Amino acid sequence: MNVRDIEQAHATLHKVLHAIPLSSSRTFSQMSGAELFLKCENLQKTGSFKVRGAFNKISKLANRGDCPSVVAASAGNHAQGVAFSASTLGVESTIVMPLATPIAKIRATQDYGANVVLHGACYDDAYAKACEIMEESGATFVHPFDDEDIIAGQGTVAIEIFRDMPTVDLVLVPAGGGGLLAGIAYYIKSINPRVRVIGVQAEGADALVRSFRAERLESTSTVHTIADGIAVKQPGGLTFDFIKRYVDDMVTVSDDEIAESILLLLERNKMVVEPAGAVSLAAALSRKVEIAGLRTVCVLSGGNIDVSFIHKIVEKGLITRGRQIKFRTIMSDLPGSLTHFSSIVAACRANVIMVQHDRLSPGLGLNDAILHMACEVGGREHGEELFRRLKEAGYEITKE
Amino acid sequence: MNVRDIEQAHATLHKVLHAIPLSSSRTFSQMSGAELFLKCENLQKTGSFKVRGAFNKISKLANRGDCPSVVAASAGNHAQGVAFSASTLGVESTIVMPLATPIAKIRATQDYGANVVLHGACYDDAYAKACEIMEESGATFVHPFDDEDIIAGQGTVAIEIFRDMPTVDLVLVPAGGGGLLAGIAYYIKSINPRVRVIGVQAEGADALVRSFRAERLESTSTVHTIADGIAVKQPGGLTFDFIKRYVDDMVTVSDDEIAESILLLLERNKMVVEPAGAVSLAAALSRKVEIAGLRTVCVLSGGNIDVSFIHKIVEKGLITRGRQIKFRTIMSDLPGSLTHFSSIVAACRANVIMVQHDRLSPGLGLNDAILHMACEVGGREHGEELFRRLKEAGYEITKE
Repeated sequence: MNVRDIEQAHATLHKVLHAIPLSSSRTFSQMSGAELFLKCENLQKTGSFKVRGAFNKISKLANRGDCPSVVAASAGNHAQGVAFSASTLGVESTIVMPLATPIAKIRATQDYGANVVLHGACYDDAYAKACEIMEESGATFVHPFDDEDIIAGQGTVAIEIFRDMPTVDLVLVPAGGGGLLAGIAYYIKSINPRVRVIGVQAEGADALVRSFRAERLESTSTVHTIADGIAVKQPGGLTFDFIKRYVDDMVTVSDDEIAESILLLLERNKMVVEPAGAVSLAAALSRKVEIAGLRTVCVLSGGNIDVSFIHKIVEKGLITRGRQIKFRTIMSDLPGSLTHFSSIVAACRANVIMVQHDRLSPGLGLNDAILHMACEVGGREHGEELFRRLKEAGYEITKE
Repeated sequence: MNVRDIEQAHATLHKVLHAIPLSSSRTFSQMSGAELFLKCENLQKTGSFKVRGAFNKISKLANRGDCPSVVAASAGNHAQGVAFSASTLGVESTIVMPLATPIAKIRATQDYGANVVLHGACYDDAYAKACEIMEESGATFVHPFDDEDIIAGQGTVAIEIFRDMPTVDLVLVPAGGGGLLAGIAYYIKSINPRVRVIGVQAEGADALVRSFRAERLESTSTVHTIADGIAVKQPGGLTFDFIKRYVDDMVTVSDDEIAESILLLLERNKMVVEPAGAVSLAAALSRKVEIAGLRTVCVLSGGNIDVSFIHKIVEKGLITRGRQIKFRTIMSDLPGSLTHFSSIVAACRANVIMVQHDRLSPGLGLNDAILHMACEVGGREHGEELFRRLKEAGYEITKE
């Protein structure tokens, strides 16, 4: 693979990709101390960068004319990238997805025109089934990362970064199997070795980071992170060859740092980014990387996140920011007690979202009850004001 | 005001605006039967189109050199638009916000460099205070919509629509006070009268729709909608003059239709859009407008939505789509009953999110209890499967 392969891939992809310019972020620049830009692959066709590699690979196969069909194994963005690319190029595709794949992802993949086969408990089982189908049907297997045409496709992101900002200093790239990181690092370093490229993984799925430190390919036996899109146990041998040669450093971020970045992107940039896609921003905001004063691009690799997960992220954010508070108090178990208590809450303009009344705790007097309450408030100060007013009215308040 | 004013405004704005190309949406095209494009002003600087009018107005004042400071009243996007524009242009700004303004919006306005004055219970009170400040300090009042420079600024959206898609057939525009609608309609009709322009309001705040039907300016005494950004009781006289002359039709959408559109934009387009900004898409998807086969642009006017509101929208969506289900059953009030019941739920891979145990209902046998349970499931089919399995195990299940 050489620079020209990536440029040819970009010429091919150009027609199908959404053209999304780098987006500058004043808020994140202030928070990180860098001049921070976002490369929004979450807004890309199919919701992630994966369409780049898949389209490049399948269009090459189709041009060669020896490719009646392709097969892939994936529960995520690769599935949608392959399905969309194949149907756009008039190639038949079969995607094997694990049985536990969320219905929304199955539907999205089918809607893009693929035959979906549900099989096995995990990715490895689905992969085995895909290999079986490949042998039976003669379909070509499309690997999610360890393939030169895939890596060249993902590397096209770097072309667009240089086009929008030739003076970039640092690029932060999410890494799972390593296809995106390998492609971007190879292109960036070939064009301008001054620019630093740093890969970011989740703490609970850091096989590439370990491999980078050990200078040889290592795998992990388990993965545990909310960033399922980069939870890869066994990185690619080919991608690692590029990474060890062209990447400057690799760092990890925690699930809490990832969740906080997702919430900030929702609030400040009005964008939905999946956990795997937000690790780059998490690394910038948590200062895991020396970025002060540098023109920094965070690649947000994808936005395919289930709506119930958004719900959890937001809920967690409301609690950690003191927008939802939970507390208990002891009150007399008599008519009017709840009214008196709740009138103070109402006067303080706090919104009750949960009430529980408990008379079964040990140590309670015969005429006492415990009231558990959760409220929505404007922020930490408003919450403190509520506690203060309740205490002034004689209630003992215990935060929960 | 003429076409050249809008073009001059665009030349001025060009340097500060984010350049966001029209975004095509395959999903929404399929759902609506139109060829649907989104104009994403939610991704615009300050999170809404309001910066266009404010910047145009204040830069004209600054160029004239007779403007040491500006004052405005707003709890929302206009506040941030004025604050950002003034500080960028080196003009001092004071924004009067109602006392109940969410803390996040106050902070955002202050962060953009404005002096914030909190005053009064509603917009009218804040407006009165802003007039007071204007008279005392000699600051220039920046109206949120009823001003030619503001209307010209908002009209620049239409220039970008034509630039990206000269063959557009129909433009759907959210309308509150009517500044955005007036500016867009005037420019579109002046350049190409064939293109239809339709304004969209919320059912609970439809003063412009009524005015349009009555062919004279009407106001409403109350507003009630989740689309607070366009909940205007008294539209502008100036904006209405443009609207009655250049707008083809006006329609309304319900709060439920707005909420569903916000959720779809989150899920499918990975974008956060505020209720006022989503009314245009809501009109397209609910077929309130004849759009089949037409090249249609929905202007998504803003994305400034509080994170607790996202939480509510998503929660409601999870329930209406059968992703969260609530039910009750009667079980014997004996050791092991809950274990037996919950083992069936677990075997069905449903995730329990709420349990309540109630022995106080009338009509319950001495050895009976009511169990209320809420679960997260993959979708409607999964929920039905859970009910079926519980019934097969002898439980009577009542949906709640």
